[in-house]
Amino acid sequence: VGRRYDTISFLSDFGTSDEHVGVVRAIVRDLAPHVAVVDLTHAVPAFDTRAGGLALARCTPYLPEGVVLAVVDPGAGTDRRAIAVEVADGAGVFVGPDNGLLAPAVAMAGGAGRVIDLTDDAYHLGTPTRLFPGRDVYAPVAAHLCNGVDLAEFGEIVDPDTLMPGTVPLPRDEGDVVIGEILHTDRWGNCQLNVAPDEVAHLVRDGRVRIIVDGPVGDPRRPERTIRVARTVESFAEIGVGAVGLVVDGSGMISLALDRRSAADDLAAAVGDQVTFAVLDDEQPGLTSPVTLRTTPPR
Amino acid sequence: VGRRYDTISFLSDFGTSDEHVGVVRAIVRDLAPHVAVVDLTHAVPAFDTRAGGLALARCTPYLPEGVVLAVVDPGAGTDRRAIAVEVADGAGVFVGPDNGLLAPAVAMAGGAGRVIDLTDDAYHLGTPTRLFPGRDVYAPVAAHLCNGVDLAEFGEIVDPDTLMPGTVPLPRDEGDVVIGEILHTDRWGNCQLNVAPDEVAHLVRDGRVRIIVDGPVGDPRRPERTIRVARTVESFAEIGVGAVGLVVDGSGMISLALDRRSAADDLAAAVGDQVTFAVLDDEQPGLTSPVTLRTTPPR
Amino acid sequence: VGRRYDTISFLSDFGTSDEHVGVVRAIVRDLAPHVAVVDLTHAVPAFDTRAGGLALARCTPYLPEGVVLAVVDPGAGTDRRAIAVEVADGAGVFVGPDNGLLAPAVAMAGGAGRVIDLTDDAYHLGTPTRLFPGRDVYAPVAAHLCNGVDLAEFGEIVDPDTLMPGTVPLPRDEGDVVIGEILHTDRWGNCQLNVAPDEVAHLVRDGRVRIIVDGPVGDPRRPERTIRVARTVESFAEIGVGAVGLVVDGSGMISLALDRRSAADDLAAAVGDQVTFAVLDDEQPGLTSPVTLRTTPPR
Repeated sequence: VGRRYDTISFLSDFGTSDEHVGVVRAIVRDLAPHVAVVDLTHAVPAFDTRAGGLALARCTPYLPEGVVLAVVDPGAGTDRRAIAVEVADGAGVFVGPDNGLLAPAVAMAGGAGRVIDLTDDAYHLGTPTRLFPGRDVYAPVAAHLCNGVDLAEFGEIVDPDTLMPGTVPLPRDEGDVVIGEILHTDRWGNCQLNVAPDEVAHLVRDGRVRIIVDGPVGDPRRPERTIRVARTVESFAEIGVGAVGLVVDGSGMISLALDRRSAADDLAAAVGDQVTFAVLDDEQPGLTSPVTLRTTPPR
Repeated sequence: VGRRYDTISFLSDFGTSDEHVGVVRAIVRDLAPHVAVVDLTHAVPAFDTRAGGLALARCTPYLPEGVVLAVVDPGAGTDRRAIAVEVADGAGVFVGPDNGLLAPAVAMAGGAGRVIDLTDDAYHLGTPTRLFPGRDVYAPVAAHLCNGVDLAEFGEIVDPDTLMPGTVPLPRDEGDVVIGEILHTDRWGNCQLNVAPDEVAHLVRDGRVRIIVDGPVGDPRRPERTIRVARTVESFAEIGVGAVGLVVDGSGMISLALDRRSAADDLAAAVGDQVTFAVLDDEQPGLTSPVTLRTTPPR
Repeated sequence: VGRRYDTISFLSDFGTSDEHVGVVRAIVRDLAPHVAVVDLTHAVPAFDTRAGGLALARCTPYLPEGVVLAVVDPGAGTDRRAIAVEVADGAGVFVGPDNGLLAPAVAMAGGAGRVIDLTDDAYHLGTPTRLFPGRDVYAPVAAHLCNGVDLAEFGEIVDPDTLMPGTVPLPRDEGDVVIGEILHTDRWGNCQLNVAPDEVAHLVRDGRVRIIVDGPVGDPRRPERTIRVARTVESFAEIGVGAVGLVVDGSGMISLALDRRSAADDLAAAVGDQVTFAVLDDEQPGLTSPVTLRTTPPR
């Protein structure tokens, strides 16, 4: 017999516009009534394994002991593996597709222990289709895991080194500039970067630094480049009207933020945009006030 | 004393833009603290009893034992009955309005056992209005049912034959064509039909069939008719770029699907559209590639 | 040792577009696994403490015993206090910012008992930032309260008279007219007012009253003023096609409503609009049918 668990933390790209999430909750309640389902988020953009992996990694420091069910699975019905990954000496088990979704969170939890390819369909729901593994494979496996079925029962052992890696972009330090990327914009419009404060500390002068946001080339609805001065602050209120703040968010990374307004809207910035940090050059005084260069895309 | 239940599966058209769902959760927690509320979905379009009934039916095969609270109730405050319907020898009880919402799910659960008109207001919340029966009638009745109050206590017995039927459209087999309807589009844009695979099997040649999607007449934002060739597939990846797939969804019905893109967007299709299946006529080779006929609506 | 609690009712402006709510649920599950989290709503408009306070007050009559976690906190990171407020002899404790958010609900629950400034960071999560107190302060304090840590352990006692008051607008009775305000529009487009039925009863003739909806001045997308006749009704169905109904909603206040359609859309009305009630003057017969005056805003 394996360890029993009481909690399934659940993340997906199922959205809340219909009953997909509800059906998974119902299945878990039916198979493992003692389990509490903790919904992390179901608003991962459809098919976006990178965004889902980043969201799961942001949750990981706060997760309770138990099973983590994560489903963003554009390859449903293909031969990508369905896996369960033990972490932290069995304090947690991640269940989901082997497509990189789980990788950042598994790394953050200390790396993979035992990994199983979920091939034994005795633990799956029998349905006429292979298209909804969230419901038919991952959910029942998560529930049976909570009931104490040992990981080894669900299929074959897999070498952790063969797992699909995640794709978290790293910032580039080019000496006089550091180039990062917007990984996530939250509900209030804060733009989380893949840059830690100490990675740009050498570019900050008197609490100020230049930031250059580069959006996609040729999108007529957005400026290609926005240049601003940002201030390092410890609270949103410190930022001041019209200014851009650099705050350290809960993951220890830098977010671009405004006071009670959306930085994403103000900077016309979006996930995937490149953000360059540079020393503020006082010989260019015009740039200390907000400047937006709008270039007309080629036709 | 009646049977006790531990679970209330909850579906509504309350949305999540305010506290309506939360108030029902609070009432259940207050009256029956041992109960877990399993949210199926609250995104049923406002007042749409047909869509709600179909969503509830899609959930039904997965529901745990217990009470099912379903509220899409445009007739709130009128004399439509509030009912509780026992199914599966008491393994489940559906609670909601007698307006057809419950009918497809009750049928799928094996048909109605005892049915009660919920007239005894000792089990309702006393409020100044009759306009929110989800909160004031259905929720407290569901909670008291879980506490072991027998069904017969809540009001008068009703003849199941007098219940309002559901309105699930059936496909029409016209010999050389089968005409179905889009019942639901999911988060990823898959379009679920009211057509089972064996109902169109005689029209499929080499895994291909013609589909004709007819939208509403005279809507300038949409084509009136879209004609495509669809392929029967077992995974989304098999569909291929630009092609339309016919997949068997979790309910055993056909869905129109694309690989990692929205079929609803690609076909300009929506719930209620008619979908006609016909044999692919190889003498019309042009139709094997995507063709969309856009007709200008009469002014 | 303090009283233990089993329920955390949770309201916020976190939205559901990412994992903020999920992280709070995870923290509670980790620190106090016996607790059920009852999500009231997370769709409070970002930073809108008034709307959040009103939603919390609407929930209050239905709340189970336990802790109420409420987070709409635009002053995160500033020196506004984080507080816990005991109500109903300890049957409930509200936890959140001291910015007026809790005030209407606390008043509705009978007023504040002990109030504590949550300064003891032994009960907070240690994080590199002060910007997410929902996660780092309020959530762990709520969980520890449920575990039986006495309120006095969390910080210094505060005089309830020093708490920030809420800002619920009161209607103005000007004799021949009563002037109220739209506090909330719900999912179905019903417009809740800050006016109780008996406050306008003297203006109603034969169940009818004139209403004048005044939107913002100079917004080209909306009429500045809409004048209609409204009827007092007990059900939506009674309202009739094209008419406006006055219903008594679950809080005992008046809502403007239509039958199966959105009053907010029909009246071009929104939260914050002023609604004036006046006696229907039968000498102006034209006004008994719907009339909308659309004024062109000055350029």
